[in-house]
Amino acid sequence: MSECMTFTSQMEQALEEARAAEKRGEVPVGAVVVSPDGKVVSAAGNRVREWCDPSAHAEIVAIREACRILGSERLAGHDLYVTLEPCPMCASAISQARIARVYYGAADPKSGGVAQGPRVFSHPQSHHVPEVYDGIGAVESERLLKAFFARMR
Amino acid sequence: MSECMTFTSQMEQALEEARAAEKRGEVPVGAVVVSPDGKVVSAAGNRVREWCDPSAHAEIVAIREACRILGSERLAGHDLYVTLEPCPMCASAISQARIARVYYGAADPKSGGVAQGPRVFSHPQSHHVPEVYDGIGAVESERLLKAFFARMR
Repeated sequence: MSECMTFTSQMEQALEEARAAEKRGEVPVGAVVVSPDGKVVSAAGNRVREWCDPSAHAEIVAIREACRILGSERLAGHDLYVTLEPCPMCASAISQARIARVYYGAADPKSGGVAQGPRVFSHPQSHHVPEVYDGIGAVESERLLKAFFARMR
Repeated sequence: MSECMTFTSQMEQALEEARAAEKRGEVPVGAVVVSPDGKVVSAAGNRVREWCDPSAHAEIVAIREACRILGSERLAGHDLYVTLEPCPMCASAISQARIARVYYGAADPKSGGVAQGPRVFSHPQSHHVPEVYDGIGAVESERLLKAFFARMR
């Protein structure tokens, strides 16, 4: 499988998680943690409302699950695919989990924490800085989010 | 009880949680969530190592537990006492949980996200900004942290 196909397939799985989150009444965001040898370790969508947990963003739910499976609070060498730019909470969790690479879909000027505002990875308080690749699957991610918020109005 | 005594008592409970965390081999940080009428809703220490969960900082564990008890992903009107300046992950979680006031002990130039580096509350991406009071119980909080890290070396 080409590297490009791998990107597509793993972001597609994150988008599936976003669609499943939407069906549960959550903001449609999904995330996938991938091992150094390319296997999906965990996949999750937003669970904030269902779990009454403001920290249950897709990224944190996927990271927690991968850490539980691997028996470690760190995920060195692992990648994270997420359909939306991580917020500051998730960006900092990604750094603390030592995720190697972050691939995200849509930019989030309103609430993002990677390329916006606090730019969590850009300060010495971020003890680990992942490689960041943006815009992957962004069109479909944005479509899902816009449709969700349009229905909320 | 005077307001000053309340501060002391609630930070003392957070320091108790920090001491209990230290006994479990965790970085000694503790946090307490207090309801608008001054009752402690939840109290927690760091559980990162025990739970293999990089998001299990004292603040997030206490917020999750308070949200579970109250059946809401938001804690409007509630205060949070924490022995150390929150990191960017916890600062953003505090904002997303709509915590009204944050009282913290020691400053954390190395990893803090409130008065350092990303200054999470200082950007428009932080949709709620709590009142912040620092330096409460800071001497004892710093003593615990310094002793812990000295033993680790």
